[in-house]
Amino acid sequence: MVYLTRKVEFSASHLYHNPEFSAEENRRVFGKCNNPHGHGHNYVLEVTVAGEPDARTGMIIDLQELKELLQSEILERMDHRFLNYEVAELKGRIPTTETVAMTIWELLEPKIQRARLHRVRLYETPDLFVDCFGDGR
Amino acid sequence: MVYLTRKVEFSASHLYHNPEFSAEENRRVFGKCNNPHGHGHNYVLEVTVAGEPDARTGMIIDLQELKELLQSEILERMDHRFLNYEVAELKGRIPTTETVAMTIWELLEPKIQRARLHRVRLYETPDLFVDCFGDGR
Amino acid sequence: MVYLTRKVEFSASHLYHNPEFSAEENRRVFGKCNNPHGHGHNYVLEVTVAGEPDARTGMIIDLQELKELLQSEILERMDHRFLNYEVAELKGRIPTTETVAMTIWELLEPKIQRARLHRVRLYETPDLFVDCFGDGR
Amino acid sequence: MVYLTRKVEFSASHLYHNPEFSAEENRRVFGKCNNPHGHGHNYVLEVTVAGEPDARTGMIIDLQELKELLQSEILERMDHRFLNYEVAELKGRIPTTETVAMTIWELLEPKIQRARLHRVRLYETPDLFVDCFGDGR
Amino acid sequence: MVYLTRKVEFSASHLYHNPEFSAEENRRVFGKCNNPHGHGHNYVLEVTVAGEPDARTGMIIDLQELKELLQSEILERMDHRFLNYEVAELKGRIPTTETVAMTIWELLEPKIQRARLHRVRLYETPDLFVDCFGDGR
Amino acid sequence: MVYLTRKVEFSASHLYHNPEFSAEENRRVFGKCNNPHGHGHNYVLEVTVAGEPDARTGMIIDLQELKELLQSEILERMDHRFLNYEVAELKGRIPTTETVAMTIWELLEPKIQRARLHRVRLYETPDLFVDCFGDGR
Repeated sequence: MVYLTRKVEFSASHLYHNPEFSAEENRRVFGKCNNPHGHGHNYVLEVTVAGEPDARTGMIIDLQELKELLQSEILERMDHRFLNYEVAELKGRIPTTETVAMTIWELLEPKIQRARLHRVRLYETPDLFVDCFGDGR
Repeated sequence: MVYLTRKVEFSASHLYHNPEFSAEENRRVFGKCNNPHGHGHNYVLEVTVAGEPDARTGMIIDLQELKELLQSEILERMDHRFLNYEVAELKGRIPTTETVAMTIWELLEPKIQRARLHRVRLYETPDLFVDCFGDGR
Repeated sequence: MVYLTRKVEFSASHLYHNPEFSAEENRRVFGKCNNPHGHGHNYVLEVTVAGEPDARTGMIIDLQELKELLQSEILERMDHRFLNYEVAELKGRIPTTETVAMTIWELLEPKIQRARLHRVRLYETPDLFVDCFGDGR
Repeated sequence: MVYLTRKVEFSASHLYHNPEFSAEENRRVFGKCNNPHGHGHNYVLEVTVAGEPDARTGMIIDLQELKELLQSEILERMDHRFLNYEVAELKGRIPTTETVAMTIWELLEPKIQRARLHRVRLYETPDLFVDCFGDGR
Repeated sequence: MVYLTRKVEFSASHLYHNPEFSAEENRRVFGKCNNPHGHGHNYVLEVTVAGEPDARTGMIIDLQELKELLQSEILERMDHRFLNYEVAELKGRIPTTETVAMTIWELLEPKIQRARLHRVRLYETPDLFVDCFGDGR
Repeated sequence: MVYLTRKVEFSASHLYHNPEFSAEENRRVFGKCNNPHGHGHNYVLEVTVAGEPDARTGMIIDLQELKELLQSEILERMDHRFLNYEVAELKGRIPTTETVAMTIWELLEPKIQRARLHRVRLYETPDLFVDCFGDGR
């Protein structure tokens, strides 16, 4: 079993707000991230797939297909978007790094061919990232 | 003469739109950056000051003062903000990397003590950055 | 289960010396790290916690609390310190990357609230790092 | 159990071609990597070993020995080489990142002393890397 | 005057050999780079243009045009190529980082519109790079 | 004229203390850097030389000679050292990044052959660096 990871980047904005919280509670829990205008990040996404290399190509996945999948499923949906308002899967949710990473897992997992999705890692900044594994690892 | 550079980061969102352009012209000129919801970046700011080291400290500038200046003048103004709407100096302007970098120059230059401001470098992404020098270098 | 990682940095110095070894043996085993004056590094610490996102916040841990914990437990103890002489938990031990990483695990593990500590990764340089998991993974 | 990772770099060239494929099939499957002149990369290799720290040294492996092993087994073999033609272990194989990583695993695993090899990670570019574990993890 | 820098990457292979040198002299002067099979790198190219921001767009250059220019003039020519044999401008020359950077300058300088080319920086590895300015700066 | 830059790293410790200051003044001016035990950094040194490429080699400087010069003049002197006590050129001085960078300039400038030294850049951390040019640029 071999694990291959591809990295892509996208720029998006978001804000954290729970309508069930009071204004004061939102500010206390979410701090600057509660700013109603939103703010943004250069997200870095690492997608890891696991599989056995194909004997005829030496590869566990077609890299061009993987690149196109990341483009069509993730970048078209999230790049240069305001995540709260423009990504259907995130509407009504608080788009924390945890939530966005899990959403990316759910979008990619059924679409990965031959190899299987092993991990989604999402960096919100170089100093903060989240890992999702399908089954708790 | 020695040049000292300090790096800080901030997260902000923005959009590009010129009200004198037609909707079609805005889309053509600014592409995805014209999205009215905005999108965001982890900006990286490098501020370079020039001076002669003080014989008593070996330093050209007090690093703690520089850090506080960057905090009070830039990070408080721009971090976790939507640049178009929440930064007074950028209102009515198109907050391109060029414009934001020049604005940062104008904010910092009069406030630098002892040493003089030499360069402002602003990264919008790791692959795109702008340098400003006060006098065309 | 989701894993969230926070990165912080600190600068410290250390030296490697085993008083049970001869001077020659210390030099042979520890090389330049046996220099009695010590030398230093910009350590980079990645702390990973595991948990289920809270339905009300979308987060597995309060990031502000985690930041304050890293500040009070690790940075106050180790930043700008000589690890052999100024960190009580390291006295009489050889502060290799392995030892410092395990010490950080022991300091943080009982203090992490709600989520549980999953991994401590400590970079001594960009080319050398150590991972600790509580139970051998 | 503690895991220690050492990073080294090497520059090499390669090409992808399966003689059982038609010229058209080679181009379709391997794209630009099928260029018969080859192309190259700055490979980054991370080697992770697992073990218990030695009570007398605080280390799980002698870092100088590990460095020399990486030099003699990997860098001498692969650095500044055309992988298809100059590395015996890769002759007749398609030197994808998967294949090269597995080859490095096979070269290093029997030679690691005291600690055991846990993971080989090979970056072909900063945006593409492969992980090998001996037993599927 | 503002300076904007765009970064792109390409993978290529090369070798150093002067046919006027003896085999021994080639080996002595060029070391491992004289390997006749060649070796390769992930080159990183930073292109800096200088200009005044356009009052209507806030930009000194159309970033999409710059991206397409780098694609058509540099990446199509050099990416996934063996520089000695496949790049017409480098034939019969020794493709050192200096030579390749100057070649890129000569290819781009006449094509940059509105803004002017200020600097070409080419990284052969993260630890070695060359800067070209048109007029010695 | 072309500029070539080589990067090397070294690990060292230091402390800031001016014997003409009171203890209180030392703490106020130098903060944590005044800790008498010292602390350390992974310094990153970039050395830039300027010259015309040699027509026979395509290079402005012999990279092997440059590497050996950096090894003998800088790394042997400063790597794994306590800068205040073990580097003769820094004795009695406050080893700020400014001072260490200027010292490196003075050590290297007379030794660079054929090309001339153009810039010394020294990173104390990824977020703080100093540039020296021989003649104020």
